[in-house]
Amino acid sequence: MIRVAIVGYGNLGKGVKAALEKNADMELTAVFSRRPAAVEGELPGVHVHSSERLTLPRDMKIDVAILCGGSKEDTPVQGPAFAKLFNTVDSFDTHAEIPAYFQKMDAIAKERGNVSVISAGWDPGIFSLERVYGDAFLPGSKAYTFWGIGVSQGHSDAARKVKGVLDARQYTIPINEAIQQVRAGKNPEFSKRQMHKRVVYIVAAEHADKEKIKQEICEMRNYYSDYNTEVVFITQDEMNKKHVVYPHGGFVLTSGVTGETNKAILEYRCQLDSNPEFTGSVLVACARAAFRLKQQGGKGAYTMLDIPPALLSPHSPEILRSKFM
Amino acid sequence: MIRVAIVGYGNLGKGVKAALEKNADMELTAVFSRRPAAVEGELPGVHVHSSERLTLPRDMKIDVAILCGGSKEDTPVQGPAFAKLFNTVDSFDTHAEIPAYFQKMDAIAKERGNVSVISAGWDPGIFSLERVYGDAFLPGSKAYTFWGIGVSQGHSDAARKVKGVLDARQYTIPINEAIQQVRAGKNPEFSKRQMHKRVVYIVAAEHADKEKIKQEICEMRNYYSDYNTEVVFITQDEMNKKHVVYPHGGFVLTSGVTGETNKAILEYRCQLDSNPEFTGSVLVACARAAFRLKQQGGKGAYTMLDIPPALLSPHSPEILRSKFM
Repeated sequence: MIRVAIVGYGNLGKGVKAALEKNADMELTAVFSRRPAAVEGELPGVHVHSSERLTLPRDMKIDVAILCGGSKEDTPVQGPAFAKLFNTVDSFDTHAEIPAYFQKMDAIAKERGNVSVISAGWDPGIFSLERVYGDAFLPGSKAYTFWGIGVSQGHSDAARKVKGVLDARQYTIPINEAIQQVRAGKNPEFSKRQMHKRVVYIVAAEHADKEKIKQEICEMRNYYSDYNTEVVFITQDEMNKKHVVYPHGGFVLTSGVTGETNKAILEYRCQLDSNPEFTGSVLVACARAAFRLKQQGGKGAYTMLDIPPALLSPHSPEILRSKFM
Repeated sequence: MIRVAIVGYGNLGKGVKAALEKNADMELTAVFSRRPAAVEGELPGVHVHSSERLTLPRDMKIDVAILCGGSKEDTPVQGPAFAKLFNTVDSFDTHAEIPAYFQKMDAIAKERGNVSVISAGWDPGIFSLERVYGDAFLPGSKAYTFWGIGVSQGHSDAARKVKGVLDARQYTIPINEAIQQVRAGKNPEFSKRQMHKRVVYIVAAEHADKEKIKQEICEMRNYYSDYNTEVVFITQDEMNKKHVVYPHGGFVLTSGVTGETNKAILEYRCQLDSNPEFTGSVLVACARAAFRLKQQGGKGAYTMLDIPPALLSPHSPEILRSKFM
């Protein structure tokens, strides 16, 4: 049994817990939380510890800690702290900071003899894999990543900060015509606006100036101004009924040529009713790989690009060769 | 530079040659052929040797030999012979015999300190990867593999053996309604007939009994009897004009649930104008990985399931982390 700890018991932490229940070779041993008393009530029978004071019972054995906090404030602190004690898996997703975060985690994990899988999930994660495979199998090809239909937490949060907005949920929508052009092998150049549009559902405060809210959202730089954005006002009741789950998904398309002129198009797509549950499921598979890499003498930081696919699987190499090849 | 030898200079061997030209870190050093004199004429400046008498100049350095013969008769013989001398990559695709072939190649390659990547390509190969990833990320999910639209060499050959048939080309066609059902998360059970249909273009001998040819093809066991098959008679001229390239492609779909009831569907698709050129391109990426695995002290047989994705890429780990994650 691989003994797993969850660090941070929000949506993603709950997704990891649900995934552990589907993997017979793994068990939930402990949860680390900033509010241990509250989580203890939700999880009878599980050891719940403070994620801030890392004082553990001496006899507690944890094979892998899965970090489920946010990439902005939690993981940059918790990653290094937990990598000193355990093998870790995280979903650090601030793309531009991945190289520096890798270096930091690599140094700590190597020093302590642990394995730290960073930036796992679907993007970064599976989509990174597919971009690398696509580029390796089709040198000189062009890659396109489309996201959605799905909820973007960052864009929802940004809209929620606009004056007069009580609640907001942003859906990223890939533009179908753009996908069709790529599938047809046309290798187009797209602006951001040509690849995705955004729809934001807003619950506005009573007497709020809806026109002003709309304008402020649509013109918001870095988040909305580069896209065609539709703002839809709804009631809190509608929000609570129709926008409770967090679906997401996307496409990685690689379009290239073999030989002189023969087109080759590779496409990966995921459609997820629950983004946090699926991400949790990917992290759990990576926890299995982290455990095995450590057993094989590995240490340091890894991304999913560095993991032999077979190590993610619950099945033996023999079963994989006979049933999955 | 990674020095590559091609073993067998048919369609696939030519695909490998075309792919090597797109990979700046690799070069074609030698070709082994059963008909060296003929190939020498086609490839001025390349060392061409007999693939049957493996007597090489002493100073010839080959890092990886890519085996491009058929899985029925060539690779089972050439694999073990070349694994004694070099790192190898092959596309052995008789699925049921992969475990035994792996054992055999593993023993020889381990003894000689070489790395042999077996059963690479797109199926087995990339599709195997996607089946393993899908199963690892969605435990308990159902996987579906659809092939086509594409030419099946085996089915074309089988049709060509029917009396009165001069030439034949078989296209495997996935049934769109079946794919749509899987995409909708319905997890259906399919018969073979429900997933694929077959269309065979036939050039018949003058005065041949076309009705009899049609019946014999449609009723052929293991090849056609489990499918709805359409037989279309054409002239040799049409065959030569319209059926010269070998397109192929297919889908791997994994359909599962996260948490209690949330659907998750993963889909990989490839559309290839030239099957042998794309397969060749995958083999070349695997040759790079074989070379690096050997450098890292690896030996024995590997499938693509055992190869960290980054090793397939021409880019450094740093570039992959900064540009592809």
